[in-house]
Amino acid sequence: DGSLKVLTLNSNRKLAEDIAAHIGTTLGECSVNMFSDGEIQINIEESVRGCDVYVVQSTCSPVNQHMMELLIMIDALKRASARSINIVMPYYGYARQDRKARSREPITAKLVADLLETAGANRVITLDLHAPQIQGFFDIPIDHLQGVPILSDYFEAKNLEDVIIVSPDHGGVTRARKLADRLKAPIGIIDKRRPRPNVAEVMNIVGNIEGKTAILIDDIIDTAGTITLAANALIENGAKEVYACCTHPVLSGPALERIDNSKIKELVITNSIPVSEDKYIDKITQLSVAPLIGEAIIRVHELQSVSILFD
Amino acid sequence: DGSLKVLTLNSNRKLAEDIAAHIGTTLGECSVNMFSDGEIQINIEESVRGCDVYVVQSTCSPVNQHMMELLIMIDALKRASARSINIVMPYYGYARQDRKARSREPITAKLVADLLETAGANRVITLDLHAPQIQGFFDIPIDHLQGVPILSDYFEAKNLEDVIIVSPDHGGVTRARKLADRLKAPIGIIDKRRPRPNVAEVMNIVGNIEGKTAILIDDIIDTAGTITLAANALIENGAKEVYACCTHPVLSGPALERIDNSKIKELVITNSIPVSEDKYIDKITQLSVAPLIGEAIIRVHELQSVSILFD
Ligand SMILES: Nc1ncnc2c1ncn2[C@@H]1O[C@H](COP(=O)(O)O)[C@@H](O)[C@H]1O
Ligand SMILES: Nc1ncnc2c1ncn2[C@@H]1O[C@H](COP(=O)(O)O)[C@@H](O)[C@H]1O
Repeated sequence: DGSLKVLTLNSNRKLAEDIAAHIGTTLGECSVNMFSDGEIQINIEESVRGCDVYVVQSTCSPVNQHMMELLIMIDALKRASARSINIVMPYYGYARQDRKARSREPITAKLVADLLETAGANRVITLDLHAPQIQGFFDIPIDHLQGVPILSDYFEAKNLEDVIIVSPDHGGVTRARKLADRLKAPIGIIDKRRPRPNVAEVMNIVGNIEGKTAILIDDIIDTAGTITLAANALIENGAKEVYACCTHPVLSGPALERIDNSKIKELVITNSIPVSEDKYIDKITQLSVAPLIGEAIIRVHELQSVSILFD
Repeated sequence: DGSLKVLTLNSNRKLAEDIAAHIGTTLGECSVNMFSDGEIQINIEESVRGCDVYVVQSTCSPVNQHMMELLIMIDALKRASARSINIVMPYYGYARQDRKARSREPITAKLVADLLETAGANRVITLDLHAPQIQGFFDIPIDHLQGVPILSDYFEAKNLEDVIIVSPDHGGVTRARKLADRLKAPIGIIDKRRPRPNVAEVMNIVGNIEGKTAILIDDIIDTAGTITLAANALIENGAKEVYACCTHPVLSGPALERIDNSKIKELVITNSIPVSEDKYIDKITQLSVAPLIGEAIIRVHELQSVSILFD
């Protein structure tokens, strides 16, 4: 009947609840458990026949578990006659395996796209893909949302003075430019290079940071090596203070310790990946992507309902 | 050039080495590691261009990890121009989710087949599928090997007297019949039934076990509830001694404790799933499927080489 249902798997229940609340609904009843041997057992506890279903799941750590939960849920929804199966994947795991950098490497980001389509996904809603090219790995529609407006709104409200937006590497300059446009600030780049083989990297800073408030931006912060080294280099080279922000707080391994010990004054992240309470350190501010995703779902669902008129 | 390569992933390295040795080769060089965030990183360290590659991986616990390792390896081999990608899956995980027993259940055994094909598998060699119907879930050739001859050879060599082969439930009678044929023994069945709702199950034993040596057979022993209850019922009803055997020793949760405390004299299993040393208890005998699988690979490879002549 084309009614909208939001279901969640195990990666991000709180975000899913907030998304449902934004839309004015509650989560559909389903349980995702494990059998004694570790195999995933999914029970969808209400009818989804004819519904447009939105399944919320970030493929963050434990990524393989979360990936299989998602694939099995899609299979179950397909067999239960859902009208459309829409995957809401705030964080797209394996996005950094997006090309063959060396011989005989897999392109796992493409494999993930193929697996989702094979299982029966009809659409993917995602946020700040590590490389926008990943959109082309899909033959189904993909809605690619941007986290920069959420981050820039937060910094704008802080009324910081004399700001410069800094990309921690060459790859992130376009992203830094987007944030800089919104905050009407100049940009800088940390230009790492190795003068000769087997000689330590030099952190060359492109742009005038003297006495300024620097905001470092990246899409993913994983072990936090890059961002904390960049922050410390900025302070050593005369920046007044350093903020850092990213969309996807992977924060694996030594990340929190590094952030805590770094010169970063505040780290601003989104909840595309949940950061568990025990991992929380005072420096971290987490912004919600629930309104952004909720709006996207409302619009997609309007379109789906409209398109039915033309079927 | 059609040369044969055997690679292994992380589920079953020892078995893979034994299979390679049986064929008269060694394992191809590859590494399967994890990035800091838990994403799988695969490096194939030698050329596989034009080769017929056999990848050994049981999708036993941790099943989702093992499944993703396999899919990513297949993707890498495909992109590295392997001539054929043959999956050697001694234990096929998720095989018990092979039909919709209730509304809105997934059929994960079929999903797994689709995922393997999507990733790029050309053939699957497997052993004692929980339901032989799973063969029909594939559109690629599947070689279905039988573990019963390995188990029966072992018991035959023991020269047990007055043997009866017992199936622990109705579903396993065909399997019990196969073992009984080879050992020239009669069969019995544990016929569990609930006389009225909310009344304890009664273990009715069909067949004459009085004073006999019973051999219980199943395909999978998971938590070992069924098999240990069956063994104890056989002894209580007059069997002289009870052996048990299965192809796939899943042995999750309380399995080893239950086996240890049961009336089972000896449990005979294969190495389709590795049983770690620390899990090993004196009662368990593990038989190798390496020669069986090695022979299968030799024959499949001969056929592949022959078929090339007709291409
Ligand atoms: N989960 C991961 N953790 C760390 N590095 C990764 C991960 N996945 C891929 N990579 C590596 O990151 C590089 C791609 O990152 P980038 O150059 O920022 O797109 C490749 O060389 C990959 O080998
Ligand atoms: N990994 C598992 N562990 C325990 N039970 C399972 C598992 N996977 C599926 N099942 C259940 O086992 C039943 C199928 O077993 P069977 O009747 O022996 O084919 C189904 O009712 C499933 O819900």
